[in-house]
Amino acid sequence: MIKVGIVGGSGYTGGELLRLLSLHPGAEAVCITSRKLEGKSVGDVHTHLRAVSSLNFESPSPAEVAERCDIVFTAVPHGTAMDWVPELLDAGAKVVDLSADYRLPLEVFEKTYGMKHRAFREAVFGMPELHPEVRGADFVANPGCYPTAASLSVAPLVGAGFAERVVFDSKSGISGAGIAPSQTSHYPNMAENVIAYKLTTHRHRAEINQELSRLSPGVKANFTPHVVPAVRGIFTTAHLLVKDEFVGEIPDKAGIERIYRDFYKDSPFIRLVPTVPSLAAVRGSNFCDIGFEVDGSGDRIVIVSAIDNLVKGASGQAIQNMNLMMGTAETEGLWFPGGGP
Amino acid sequence: MIKVGIVGGSGYTGGELLRLLSLHPGAEAVCITSRKLEGKSVGDVHTHLRAVSSLNFESPSPAEVAERCDIVFTAVPHGTAMDWVPELLDAGAKVVDLSADYRLPLEVFEKTYGMKHRAFREAVFGMPELHPEVRGADFVANPGCYPTAASLSVAPLVGAGFAERVVFDSKSGISGAGIAPSQTSHYPNMAENVIAYKLTTHRHRAEINQELSRLSPGVKANFTPHVVPAVRGIFTTAHLLVKDEFVGEIPDKAGIERIYRDFYKDSPFIRLVPTVPSLAAVRGSNFCDIGFEVDGSGDRIVIVSAIDNLVKGASGQAIQNMNLMMGTAETEGLWFPGGGP
Amino acid sequence: MIKVGIVGGSGYTGGELLRLLSLHPGAEAVCITSRKLEGKSVGDVHTHLRAVSSLNFESPSPAEVAERCDIVFTAVPHGTAMDWVPELLDAGAKVVDLSADYRLPLEVFEKTYGMKHRAFREAVFGMPELHPEVRGADFVANPGCYPTAASLSVAPLVGAGFAERVVFDSKSGISGAGIAPSQTSHYPNMAENVIAYKLTTHRHRAEINQELSRLSPGVKANFTPHVVPAVRGIFTTAHLLVKDEFVGEIPDKAGIERIYRDFYKDSPFIRLVPTVPSLAAVRGSNFCDIGFEVDGSGDRIVIVSAIDNLVKGASGQAIQNMNLMMGTAETEGLWFPGGGP
Amino acid sequence: MIKVGIVGGSGYTGGELLRLLSLHPGAEAVCITSRKLEGKSVGDVHTHLRAVSSLNFESPSPAEVAERCDIVFTAVPHGTAMDWVPELLDAGAKVVDLSADYRLPLEVFEKTYGMKHRAFREAVFGMPELHPEVRGADFVANPGCYPTAASLSVAPLVGAGFAERVVFDSKSGISGAGIAPSQTSHYPNMAENVIAYKLTTHRHRAEINQELSRLSPGVKANFTPHVVPAVRGIFTTAHLLVKDEFVGEIPDKAGIERIYRDFYKDSPFIRLVPTVPSLAAVRGSNFCDIGFEVDGSGDRIVIVSAIDNLVKGASGQAIQNMNLMMGTAETEGLWFPGGGP
Repeated sequence: MIKVGIVGGSGYTGGELLRLLSLHPGAEAVCITSRKLEGKSVGDVHTHLRAVSSLNFESPSPAEVAERCDIVFTAVPHGTAMDWVPELLDAGAKVVDLSADYRLPLEVFEKTYGMKHRAFREAVFGMPELHPEVRGADFVANPGCYPTAASLSVAPLVGAGFAERVVFDSKSGISGAGIAPSQTSHYPNMAENVIAYKLTTHRHRAEINQELSRLSPGVKANFTPHVVPAVRGIFTTAHLLVKDEFVGEIPDKAGIERIYRDFYKDSPFIRLVPTVPSLAAVRGSNFCDIGFEVDGSGDRIVIVSAIDNLVKGASGQAIQNMNLMMGTAETEGLWFPGGGP
Repeated sequence: MIKVGIVGGSGYTGGELLRLLSLHPGAEAVCITSRKLEGKSVGDVHTHLRAVSSLNFESPSPAEVAERCDIVFTAVPHGTAMDWVPELLDAGAKVVDLSADYRLPLEVFEKTYGMKHRAFREAVFGMPELHPEVRGADFVANPGCYPTAASLSVAPLVGAGFAERVVFDSKSGISGAGIAPSQTSHYPNMAENVIAYKLTTHRHRAEINQELSRLSPGVKANFTPHVVPAVRGIFTTAHLLVKDEFVGEIPDKAGIERIYRDFYKDSPFIRLVPTVPSLAAVRGSNFCDIGFEVDGSGDRIVIVSAIDNLVKGASGQAIQNMNLMMGTAETEGLWFPGGGP
Repeated sequence: MIKVGIVGGSGYTGGELLRLLSLHPGAEAVCITSRKLEGKSVGDVHTHLRAVSSLNFESPSPAEVAERCDIVFTAVPHGTAMDWVPELLDAGAKVVDLSADYRLPLEVFEKTYGMKHRAFREAVFGMPELHPEVRGADFVANPGCYPTAASLSVAPLVGAGFAERVVFDSKSGISGAGIAPSQTSHYPNMAENVIAYKLTTHRHRAEINQELSRLSPGVKANFTPHVVPAVRGIFTTAHLLVKDEFVGEIPDKAGIERIYRDFYKDSPFIRLVPTVPSLAAVRGSNFCDIGFEVDGSGDRIVIVSAIDNLVKGASGQAIQNMNLMMGTAETEGLWFPGGGP
Repeated sequence: MIKVGIVGGSGYTGGELLRLLSLHPGAEAVCITSRKLEGKSVGDVHTHLRAVSSLNFESPSPAEVAERCDIVFTAVPHGTAMDWVPELLDAGAKVVDLSADYRLPLEVFEKTYGMKHRAFREAVFGMPELHPEVRGADFVANPGCYPTAASLSVAPLVGAGFAERVVFDSKSGISGAGIAPSQTSHYPNMAENVIAYKLTTHRHRAEINQELSRLSPGVKANFTPHVVPAVRGIFTTAHLLVKDEFVGEIPDKAGIERIYRDFYKDSPFIRLVPTVPSLAAVRGSNFCDIGFEVDGSGDRIVIVSAIDNLVKGASGQAIQNMNLMMGTAETEGLWFPGGGP
């Protein structure tokens, strides 16, 4: 039984890790930390976990956590994870960091997040479909929710070299903004509404650029995020503009489907769907559903993907990474359907 | 043209007063106050009013407001209205107070709200369907949203003396909780949920008791409020339990319908509907829709009513009161349908 | 491994049975029937099950189903289950019927549903918390969603003899109305709305009466259902009116809590919560959360309960019944938290 | 008083025309037709109009309608309007057609809609901001909802010649799909979901191309529609890709704002907002709110617009056209704010 620690368990990501671990036959949460909730029971805070989890929040040191756990998830805000990760690693624990602190090269991180990094380490970028080196790794940086959805949607076609530019128009559920109430998450502002923000400047651009450039140096990536009236889920519409040289020369629907099936043949959580995916079909699950259509003009392919932002976009992908790091089957404890309807 | 002032314009009630006044041919908002928004334009705060309202928030004294206005709406929290109302009245303005400060007799107010009243005055209770004395009044206390919906739903039958007890099970949109974000109004907590609160102790009980007791001394009234995933609206389910002496002796459907039509024959905003009312049909309007069904047991009548909590439950009823206080037609500027769908 | 058949798998109940069985370590769906979907894959119909379920819809005879399965869930409409159940039982399969055909005594069924019963059998009423005889039974009638939520909320207090009358005001998600689109389920009609229906005449009254009368003969039960903007869940507000002899004599909060804890001490899926329950906390799970408050008047107790109508109100309770009928642990495959947020 | 007829009043567009006309001081609905609803009162069908409208549905001939009305709105499906429009015009009525039958040149219509046109006439394209020739016209084709939102969002910049291509990613409320229930509009399918459809082939492309090509011949326009959990509204995200020759040479934020203000200086319903627009701020109103941001790369401008699809996207724009056709002030009866929150 893998012993798991969760550092920073007051938010949605921590609660979701506990929910998913409760479904995992080979791993067990043994420790969850939160300074402000110390002593409270998990079930009084994450009320859906009442009776299922008997843990209480604690406030131990990194060394204590590392001693009690085989692997630790750091689910604290960016800028705080760096205060935990090196000590945890040095004390011998494996670590999956769910913050942004270790997803980008040092300089890119510092520029994107506008802060000095106090404790940089190299991490494996934890998107197993694009990074097989997750297997057996000791330290993994879990990707952002938008970059996961965006990168997976187009990786096969970008890898095939067809793309001049991809315009990602992303629609997220509001849980991505966290557990704390805000003007945006105020029900009268969010219900029946669409909210666009950081139209051209969202920080997740850096991760998307990083992943797409690896697959096809020089490809342009644009990214505009929106929030729609949904708690969970990211629906990504990727408008892939074809390089001039390939206009009218790209494969037909069946050909593109082959490219996807081949690219993702060892990726059990990718489901290619015959029409268009839907948030409802992935809600609560670790699947990433993908569909597409080729514009009759031959110069644009529209790819749409759906994930649950808290699962494949965060805690589920973290468990998937854990499985691979610990030598367990990739789908262990994660092979269940979404909750739809 | 009636000159209108709004004291406390930063919240939903203030914004709604401006929206409704923009549709009123005989009245005009000339002043809106907010200490914290002083100098800001209305359209930057209540963005739906951009271009329609050219007012800026101001921070004048009560006397200044009274001088510039024929009638003033005080839309500040309970406990604050009492700092404005006496001065406004003494300076010659008519006043509709939308807070709870003047809805109850002095002792009842102090007990219910747990505070000393610093400036009590007698007010007319501003529910025109039950209080014709609103016409020509100088000072009106606008009722709470729940009491409006509850009282109107059963007044004819309680007045007829059939009721031993009424159990009000009320379902409100979340805008009733105001413009400030909270745990309850956080979209992930409110969407797809039902939240019950103050199961037996909500302060609006006092107003409901007051109105029902006037119609039938000794009738018991119970009240349990809920919030449902809706911005606007209160749907009230009134379970009227028949006095023993009337069990099996109450009128049939047609007879009860006659009682309602007779009771509300001079009340243009009450619509008796053939089946059940719906929040969608009243949203944005000043109507109160009412339907009912008699239990085959003969000992219970279920009456359901729908209002928009921000209109008939607050700002619309305030305008209706203004019309009557100023001698204008009751429906002036309010005779428009809800926005449904 | 228990071999499970599902008769009538095109609707929400059938899909939910498959979802829950995919999480069950000791049972496996081996057959799912639907005449109109014959030959289609489950994943093309219930898209969240894509890749997880490899079944196709079939159209076998009852005898064929019984031969391949240890236990069969009949998830067809009332009036149709009676065409399946006797043959399945006679062929040696255990049966959980999710329709209304076997929940009531013959005469009550025929009167309530306005039809002749063509093939009556005696069944155990499948609410394990109130019917321990489910253990080892061969044929169980799975209760309706509203009656499950209503009965569980008040059984301890009704059983204690305090109740003169209970007014159940129930708020359901729209999935209870099924998978077929209708005027009620049309998004513009349902969103931001509350819909009351069959204010005094819903058929589920009969089941509620049956259960409450067993606990306290002569108790009056009233029931008014509503639909609120939610896919899943039933939130029940039970207004329990105390018998005259007990007014002012009922136990205090701690005392009532003891009554509940004692009554449900062997019922793992009942969670007594310190404040009020929430649909979000039970969504997707088999839990029934219960909270309450005693009216200061001493003559009313308000109890509120939350279940997922598709799980504890249908398919989850069916699996719970299966576990008990087959001699498995009651919580096997069902001991997971809801999906909240 | 302008006498108005509505042909085809059973749907959302017809109901909305009645709602808006009830707010118009200079026009009055005198006739509403529906074959299937003949004899029913408007208030029994569009329940929000109960008491406000006293019309009944009728089934008169085109000539009868034309005789009783100064102007007629045809709100019937495409393919049916062509059976009404020529007779209405020939009988002397002015006509605003809300269907697609007269928005496109004959050949483009027949190709796009896959049908022969049985009665073609030339119409003015009824988007007053781009077509001043609406003023005084006798026959106007009211634009589609998506094309209205899309064209208005980028017209000034496309007109300025900066655009190589515009990728429109549009998010609509479900009321655009009409009043009849469907799988898509089924609440469990729509709530908390995002649905993309016709990723590259929606018919409204033709109108968008028509309008953008008039402003800048050769500009490429892509269009992908989505439905989000909202009843009303279209939120359009326009990714404008700058021509190579202008990369890095486009005006700054203030410059682009000047271009918009100049272009729309005579368009009262266009509101340029300082940040991003919101469906909530335009809901129920005829406004089109627009905001934008320039990508730091200098090769993309993201423009976002919000309209109410049933108002500015249909019935409100129809009234705006009526005002101009009849010589009334453009804003008459339409100068009111949206309902937000």
